[in-house]
Amino acid sequence: MIHKIAVLGASGYTGAELVRLIATHPTMQIAALSADRKAGMEMSEVFPFLRHLSLPRLQKIEEIDFSGIDLAFCALPHATSQEVIAALPSGLRIVDLSADFRLRDPAAYQKWYGKPHAAPALQAEAVYGLTEFYRDEIRSARLVAGTGCNAATGQYAIRPLIEAGVIDLDQIVIDLKAGVSGAGRSLKENLLHAELSEGTHAYSPGGTHRHLGEFDQEFSRAAGRPVLVQFTPHLLPMNRGILATVYVKGEARAVHRALADRYADETFLEVLPFGALPSTRDVRGSNFVHIGVVGDRIPGRAVVVATLDNLAKGSSGQAIQNANLMLGAEETAGLMLAPVFP
Amino acid sequence: MIHKIAVLGASGYTGAELVRLIATHPTMQIAALSADRKAGMEMSEVFPFLRHLSLPRLQKIEEIDFSGIDLAFCALPHATSQEVIAALPSGLRIVDLSADFRLRDPAAYQKWYGKPHAAPALQAEAVYGLTEFYRDEIRSARLVAGTGCNAATGQYAIRPLIEAGVIDLDQIVIDLKAGVSGAGRSLKENLLHAELSEGTHAYSPGGTHRHLGEFDQEFSRAAGRPVLVQFTPHLLPMNRGILATVYVKGEARAVHRALADRYADETFLEVLPFGALPSTRDVRGSNFVHIGVVGDRIPGRAVVVATLDNLAKGSSGQAIQNANLMLGAEETAGLMLAPVFP
Amino acid sequence: MIHKIAVLGASGYTGAELVRLIATHPTMQIAALSADRKAGMEMSEVFPFLRHLSLPRLQKIEEIDFSGIDLAFCALPHATSQEVIAALPSGLRIVDLSADFRLRDPAAYQKWYGKPHAAPALQAEAVYGLTEFYRDEIRSARLVAGTGCNAATGQYAIRPLIEAGVIDLDQIVIDLKAGVSGAGRSLKENLLHAELSEGTHAYSPGGTHRHLGEFDQEFSRAAGRPVLVQFTPHLLPMNRGILATVYVKGEARAVHRALADRYADETFLEVLPFGALPSTRDVRGSNFVHIGVVGDRIPGRAVVVATLDNLAKGSSGQAIQNANLMLGAEETAGLMLAPVFP
Amino acid sequence: MIHKIAVLGASGYTGAELVRLIATHPTMQIAALSADRKAGMEMSEVFPFLRHLSLPRLQKIEEIDFSGIDLAFCALPHATSQEVIAALPSGLRIVDLSADFRLRDPAAYQKWYGKPHAAPALQAEAVYGLTEFYRDEIRSARLVAGTGCNAATGQYAIRPLIEAGVIDLDQIVIDLKAGVSGAGRSLKENLLHAELSEGTHAYSPGGTHRHLGEFDQEFSRAAGRPVLVQFTPHLLPMNRGILATVYVKGEARAVHRALADRYADETFLEVLPFGALPSTRDVRGSNFVHIGVVGDRIPGRAVVVATLDNLAKGSSGQAIQNANLMLGAEETAGLMLAPVFP
Repeated sequence: MIHKIAVLGASGYTGAELVRLIATHPTMQIAALSADRKAGMEMSEVFPFLRHLSLPRLQKIEEIDFSGIDLAFCALPHATSQEVIAALPSGLRIVDLSADFRLRDPAAYQKWYGKPHAAPALQAEAVYGLTEFYRDEIRSARLVAGTGCNAATGQYAIRPLIEAGVIDLDQIVIDLKAGVSGAGRSLKENLLHAELSEGTHAYSPGGTHRHLGEFDQEFSRAAGRPVLVQFTPHLLPMNRGILATVYVKGEARAVHRALADRYADETFLEVLPFGALPSTRDVRGSNFVHIGVVGDRIPGRAVVVATLDNLAKGSSGQAIQNANLMLGAEETAGLMLAPVFP
Repeated sequence: MIHKIAVLGASGYTGAELVRLIATHPTMQIAALSADRKAGMEMSEVFPFLRHLSLPRLQKIEEIDFSGIDLAFCALPHATSQEVIAALPSGLRIVDLSADFRLRDPAAYQKWYGKPHAAPALQAEAVYGLTEFYRDEIRSARLVAGTGCNAATGQYAIRPLIEAGVIDLDQIVIDLKAGVSGAGRSLKENLLHAELSEGTHAYSPGGTHRHLGEFDQEFSRAAGRPVLVQFTPHLLPMNRGILATVYVKGEARAVHRALADRYADETFLEVLPFGALPSTRDVRGSNFVHIGVVGDRIPGRAVVVATLDNLAKGSSGQAIQNANLMLGAEETAGLMLAPVFP
Repeated sequence: MIHKIAVLGASGYTGAELVRLIATHPTMQIAALSADRKAGMEMSEVFPFLRHLSLPRLQKIEEIDFSGIDLAFCALPHATSQEVIAALPSGLRIVDLSADFRLRDPAAYQKWYGKPHAAPALQAEAVYGLTEFYRDEIRSARLVAGTGCNAATGQYAIRPLIEAGVIDLDQIVIDLKAGVSGAGRSLKENLLHAELSEGTHAYSPGGTHRHLGEFDQEFSRAAGRPVLVQFTPHLLPMNRGILATVYVKGEARAVHRALADRYADETFLEVLPFGALPSTRDVRGSNFVHIGVVGDRIPGRAVVVATLDNLAKGSSGQAIQNANLMLGAEETAGLMLAPVFP
Repeated sequence: MIHKIAVLGASGYTGAELVRLIATHPTMQIAALSADRKAGMEMSEVFPFLRHLSLPRLQKIEEIDFSGIDLAFCALPHATSQEVIAALPSGLRIVDLSADFRLRDPAAYQKWYGKPHAAPALQAEAVYGLTEFYRDEIRSARLVAGTGCNAATGQYAIRPLIEAGVIDLDQIVIDLKAGVSGAGRSLKENLLHAELSEGTHAYSPGGTHRHLGEFDQEFSRAAGRPVLVQFTPHLLPMNRGILATVYVKGEARAVHRALADRYADETFLEVLPFGALPSTRDVRGSNFVHIGVVGDRIPGRAVVVATLDNLAKGSSGQAIQNANLMLGAEETAGLMLAPVFP
C-alpha cells in the first residue's frame, strides 16, 4: 500500500526534513512539492543534499492536482497556512506544521498572534498534534496541528508531572536552549554564523514567546485549572536540538517515576535512569526524546531535562508520526532512524 | 534472510557508526559487540545516542562465539587489527576498517607504518575495499580492507581521470579539508573544542600522511606506471565531512566527462553539473559522494572538488556496502539514508 | 614604575590569558613563568599565539628566584595551589586563581572539596577576590583568592538584589550556560570537538557544583542569613563566555534599579537598558560584564541575565584587576581592551 | 599628540574592528562615525560589544565636519567608496578599505569589477596598502588602498619567493581557507549558521575571484613579467582567520630562507621554524601573520602555509598600520594586542 503525499512549502528546513524522512519511509511516496517563489526549480537546486532522490519539480500550490493525494503536509509560514488550507479540497487529510491551528481558543489565538483567525471553523476542527497525548483524536482527525518545537519539549518534561499531581503548579520554570535551525532559513542578522558562533543569548524573554500560548492551553487543560509557567528560550551556536531545563517543586523520585511510568510504552520517549541527564547530541536527526531527572540539594525540588531534535521530533518527525496514525500505517514507520553522532 | 553480524571495536566512532547504520539495515542483525576495556558495559552507556536499540552487551573478543556469525566488522586500532584477525576463525567473512590491510606490498606497509606486517598471508589475501573499483573482487573476498577516508575521497576525484587519460600524471595536487571525527574518539589536545574551534591548520604535510601509501599504490596501478601526488590534509572545526580540492592539468570539460561517464551507473556517486561545486553539508550522515569540476582561467587546468562523510562513505558506510556484496545482499541495502541537513 | 610578575602554572588557559593581558599592561612585566612538566620549553612552543613576545623560558617553581618579584599569579590546579603557596616567600603578594582559598570556613572547604585544607592559616588570611565587593580588603591584602568564573557571574547578577532587599531570598534559580574553555586544557572526552559541537548538556546538576560553596558563603554573608540557591550549569559548544539566566521573585523595575544603582560607578559592569538582554559575543576577550533585566508576565517575577568572559573577567582579568589594586596601580590598567567581535 | 579620526561606514565588521582597535590606540581619537542607514543611532545599538566606549553618534557622511579630522578610514561597500572619496576634502588623508583603489590599471579594474572606474584620478593617486612592501610610498601618500584580505595572505606567502627567485613562476597554486567574517554582515543564505556550520565549500573557483586582480598586478610587478596563479578560496565554519596553503615548485629550504630573510625585521610577520605550520587560532584578533614552510616528498616542491586574521591584519589592522605611517606615528601603535586564544 502506497500513500501519495504532497509537501506544501518544501523550500524551508521543515519541508526539506519531511522529504528527508519520507525518502526512506516504507509506504509514503512524494507526489507533489510546492514552493511558490521557487516554482519550476528542481528540489536539488534548492537543497543539494537531496539530489540523489527522484522528486517532482517544485510547483505553485494552485498547480497541484490533489485528486490522487492521500495526505498533505503544510510547512508554510504562519498566517499563510490558514489561508492555504481553507482553499484545499475539504476531504484532504492535512498535517499542518505552522502555528496556525495550535490554539483552540480564538481569543488566545488573537492574543498571541495579534490578529483574528481567518479560518475559525478549521481552527475548531484541528487536533493538537502532540502524538503521545492525543493519539486517538489524531487517528480520526482530518486536520492535525503540529506543535511548536519548544512547546513539545517542555510538555514532554512536564505533562506527566501535572497528570500525576507530583509538582507545585505555580512554581514551574522552563529554561530552554535551542539550536538555530528552529528559526528557519530566513535571512536575519542574529542567525548569521559570524553573529551566533560564540554568541549565546536569550530571546523573547519575560513571557512573550508565542509557544507560551501552547503551554498555557495544554498545561491548564491537563491540570483542570489555569497554569502559568515561566519560560525563557535561548539561542545557541548549534544547528539542531532543543534542551529544556525545567525547575519544579516536587519530590525528585516521584517526578522521575511519573515520567518513567507515563512513557514506559512509548517508542520514542526515553526516560534515563534517575540522576542521568541527556545531551542534544544524542537525539540529533532522530525522532527520539531523552529525559532525565535529578533531585536538587534543596529538599523537595527537582530538575527535569528534556531534549529532542527540533526539526525531527519537534516538527517534521512528529508530523510523519501523526500522518502514520491518520493513514492507518504503523505509527513508527519511517521514523526509526538512529540519531547521527558525532 | 538474516545475516548475523559482529562488530569488533564497537566503542569508537566507526564502531558506533556501524551500529547506527545496521540499526535500520533490512537483513543485518547485530549478534555481538566487542570493546576490550569496556567489556561488560551496555552500548548505551558508551553511546547514549543508541539507547533506543536492543543490543548485546559489550564483550571481550575472546568471549564471542563466532559459530553463528556471518560476518565481522573490525573497527580496531591499526596494528591491533592484524593480530586479532589472524586469530579469528579462518572461514569468517571480515571487513576490516583499520589501515592494516590496505597496502598489498609488504615493503610499502613497512615504509608507511614503520614495522613489518604481522600477518603477511592475510595481507596478501585482502581485497582493497574501494567498492566501485573492486566490486567483483569484493564479492568473492573473505577479507576486505576498508580504505582510508582521505584516500577514498581523493581516489573518487582522480581515478577516472587516470583511467581516461585526461590529466598530466605528474602535476596532481590534493588539498584536503577534514572534519575532526576522522581522528576518532581519542584524547588529544588538538581535538579539543577549545583548540579546534576557530583553529584550522594543516597536518601531516609534505608527503608524510599514511594515506599517501594508498594513493601511490592505487594511482600507480590505475596508470600502469608510478604516480606521485602532492597531498596536504587540513583539520577543520567541523565534525563530519571531507572536502578534497584537486588541482589537475587537463581540459576541464574532458575531466568532467570522464567523471560523469565513469559514475553514470553508480548509486552513491553524484557528479554535479559542470561548474557546480559540492559542500560537506550535503553528504553528512550519508553514503553519497558529491563531485564537481570547474575549469581554471589558465587554459588546460581544472579543479575537481569531491566530498563525502568520513564516517559513512569514508569508512563504516563503505564497510557495509562491501559486506552487502560479500553476503550476496543488495549492494545498497541499509545505505539509502538521505544526508542530514542542516 | 615597573612591577615584576611571576606566573605559576603558565601552561594552562588561565596562565596563557594572564600572559596575553600582561603583554600590553603598562606597568607589569613578566619576570618568571613556571610549568612543572613543561619546564625548559619556550612559552611559544606551548602556546604559539604568544610567539611574538619575548618571554622567560618555562621553569620549575623551585628554580624561580622570587627576590625581585613583586607579585605572583598562581594558576595551578586546585589542591596543588595551597601546597605551593605555603612554600612561597611569606612576604610575596599573591593572586591565586585556583579554588583553594575561596571558602573561608574550613568545614565548608572540606564539604565541597572532600578533604581538610592543608594551609588553614593562609585560608584565614585570604581575601575573596570579587573586586567590586571587596575592593578595600583586596587593596591591603597579601593573598587574594580569585573567584570561580560561574560564581562571579551569578554574584554580579544577584548580590545587589540581596543588598537592596528587592527579591525573595528563597526562590532564586540560576541556570548557567558556559563555554568550554572554563574546563581548561584537560583531555576529557566531553571536551572534544566531536562530542561538544551540537552537544549541549547540563553538568554537576542538583546542587553538586563546587561553585555553590561560594554562592552559599557570599549570598548568606550579604543577606545576613542563610541563602540557598538552585544552580544548574550547562556546557555549550563555544569557547569563551558564561551566560547566567537568573529567575527571581521581585519587582522587575526595582531589580533593574538596584543593579543600575549599584554598578553606576563601576568601569567594567554595564547594566543594559531595562528589557535589553546581553549576549556572550559582546564581552568575549574583555573584562566587561553585561547585565540585563526583564519582567516576567507573571507579576512580581523577573529575569536577570548576566554575561562575562570566563577566562578574562571570570579569572585572569579579575586577577589582574586585583593585582592592580594590591600594587597601587590604576585598577583598570591593562584591562580596557575592547571585546573581540565577531 | 592626538590624531582625530573619522570612520566612514562604521556599521559593518571592518568598521567595528577599526573602532575596537582605535579604542586602545595611544594617539588616535574617534571624532566622527558614519553609517547612512543607521544615522542617528548610537554605535552601542549597532554593536553592543562597544557599549563601554564614549563614541560620537552615527551620522550621514554629509553631516560630518571634516575640518578638524586628520584622517578618515573608509569602510564603505565597493563602488560606493570611489564616489564618496571623490567628494571628500581634497587634502584629507584617507585609508580606504574597499576594493576600489587596489588596482592601478583602469582596464584591470573594469575587467574584475565589471564597469569603468568613476574616479580615475584618485585611482592613479592611490598607493597599494600592503605595508611591508610599500612602506615608503604609504608614508607620503594621501590615499592608501587597503588590500583584499585573501590577497594579503597570499602575497605574504609568495612575494618574497618571487623577489628571491626561488620558485617556478608558472606553477603556483593557492588553496585558501577563509572564515566567514570576511563576507561582512550581509544577509546571505550561505552565511547563515545553519548553512555554514558543517558546510565547508569552495567559492569563486576557477580564477573568478576578484582578488586575483591583485595577485596578477602585484606578482607580475614583483617578477617583472606576467605571473598567473591558480587560486581557490573556501568558506569554513569559523568566524575569523584565513589560512592559505601555497604549493610551489622550488627548493623548500631556499623558500624558507627567502621568507625568513625578507621578514627578519618585520614586527608583525613571524616565520616559523622550518617544518612547523601555523593555525588560524594563533593569530585571531591580532595584527600578526604566521608563516610556515615544509618540503614535499617530491624533490623540488614545497608547501608554504600563511595565516592572518582577515578583519585585523587582513583589513582594519592593516589600515591602522598604514594610517600610523601616514600620520607620522609609531608604525605599530595600537596594534601590539596579543591574539585571543582560545
